[in-house]
Amino acid sequence: MSRIAYVNGRYLDMRHASVNIEDRGYQFADGVYEVCEVRGGRLVDMPRHLARLQRSLGELRIKEPMPLAALSVVMHEVVRRNRVNDGIVYLQVSRGVARRDHGFPAESVKPAVVVTARSIDPAKGQANAARGIKVITLPENRWPRVDIKSTALLPNVLAKQAAREAGAYEAWYVDRDGYVTEGSSSNAWIVTKEGRVVTRSADAGILAGVTRAVLIDACEALQVRVEERPFTPAEAASAAEAFVTASSQLVMPVVSIDGQPIGDGKPGALAKRLREQFHRFAVFS
Amino acid sequence: MSRIAYVNGRYLDMRHASVNIEDRGYQFADGVYEVCEVRGGRLVDMPRHLARLQRSLGELRIKEPMPLAALSVVMHEVVRRNRVNDGIVYLQVSRGVARRDHGFPAESVKPAVVVTARSIDPAKGQANAARGIKVITLPENRWPRVDIKSTALLPNVLAKQAAREAGAYEAWYVDRDGYVTEGSSSNAWIVTKEGRVVTRSADAGILAGVTRAVLIDACEALQVRVEERPFTPAEAASAAEAFVTASSQLVMPVVSIDGQPIGDGKPGALAKRLREQFHRFAVFS
Repeated sequence: MSRIAYVNGRYLDMRHASVNIEDRGYQFADGVYEVCEVRGGRLVDMPRHLARLQRSLGELRIKEPMPLAALSVVMHEVVRRNRVNDGIVYLQVSRGVARRDHGFPAESVKPAVVVTARSIDPAKGQANAARGIKVITLPENRWPRVDIKSTALLPNVLAKQAAREAGAYEAWYVDRDGYVTEGSSSNAWIVTKEGRVVTRSADAGILAGVTRAVLIDACEALQVRVEERPFTPAEAASAAEAFVTASSQLVMPVVSIDGQPIGDGKPGALAKRLREQFHRFAVFS
Repeated sequence: MSRIAYVNGRYLDMRHASVNIEDRGYQFADGVYEVCEVRGGRLVDMPRHLARLQRSLGELRIKEPMPLAALSVVMHEVVRRNRVNDGIVYLQVSRGVARRDHGFPAESVKPAVVVTARSIDPAKGQANAARGIKVITLPENRWPRVDIKSTALLPNVLAKQAAREAGAYEAWYVDRDGYVTEGSSSNAWIVTKEGRVVTRSADAGILAGVTRAVLIDACEALQVRVEERPFTPAEAASAAEAFVTASSQLVMPVVSIDGQPIGDGKPGALAKRLREQFHRFAVFS
């Protein structure tokens, strides 16, 4: 079955789904995006994703292309048309098409919207989680506005590729002060020997992850104490457990950092438990 | 006349010229570009632009989409088809189209190439130069790899827009140490009271501008002394002159920085002279 994408009002075969070469998303990375989990045909935590999208658009002063409720309808429709039961739905909004010029275009330029969806076999994520992933660290080299989920992802691309070439799955950025910020496409967490979960505060140089926020709620409900504070790679290396969160990864155990095993070098018990419990605390729509 | 673009092997009407929604340039800003001046129907300093393109591609490990000589032919052809006598030609190369995934795609994925051109009335640039432009300063907030001419330009977009909204034409970034790096789409220069031209070294947090390099050659030939070193906004404010360089701006006099007039608040004599002399030192093809 060929995949179907929504592009500026039309549902198109992916192979022919295109945007104008003067779309500012293409020439300037002048756009934002969201990736949302699909589970059992339903979208996971859409209100939080849409709220974050709205914030990203607001920070960049990109107009909302349509009411959020309508965007939600389109995302559901793309999931339906692609018969995605488990997988992800991707939404991208750019500032629109205009003759190339760095400054914002005329008010009349409409934002461009692309929505795609694809199936991902949940067994793959489960297998990954059962093995646990390896992480490397790299110096933070992104701009300070990583709180905006923009498509200016070139640094993230290079970090992810560096991780792969080191035989790892994710790269954690380390800031000038020696603290982990986040991964190239995930938030970073550790579990202390006392069983406390530690992750950097969302107002300090990271993206406010949706899965991160839901997991903090989950921890509270499960009586797992959460400390929102930075940690160093050294603290991570001597932690009981480590894991990452992302909409497409859920809670993914980390078994080594820069080649150093975490705990006994196997996925941690708390990470496994949080992964299993996660969807109890998610909102399905 | 409708404009013509070259897109992945075909010459298309701009209105219908498009790239796939999974082009990595659109989803990840995973691409590079060049802007080259067109003057009298000829391309200015193409060898330097192509050499820089090659370097940018190399740094990102994006394959060369075709031999540089062939790219040059395409750029000339786009200029010809658009009947551009004076204006610019724009070239963008992305890592190509692949299912969304941060890391590099399979080796078989071909880079995508887009070339456009448009006429710009030289009288506009001349009028701008006769008035001189205003500049504001902003904290440097781009990633460290600005030596790569990538399309991850969102910070530059916001800086340029901030300049416009402040009634200025360009924004100069100021690094943590208080020194000007460069403009959002140009290199920054001052002229000391002793008549020396000062611009930051190209190996220190700026893009190695083609116009910058040619102008350094021009200065040598014209016996104008050049100091490649950083300068502060305060030094700029008390300088004799200031200007910016870019392929689309040539040498553009700056008459104020953050509202403070430079010199007598009018375009400087040396900047004017360098602008007039510039093309004597450029290579036409």
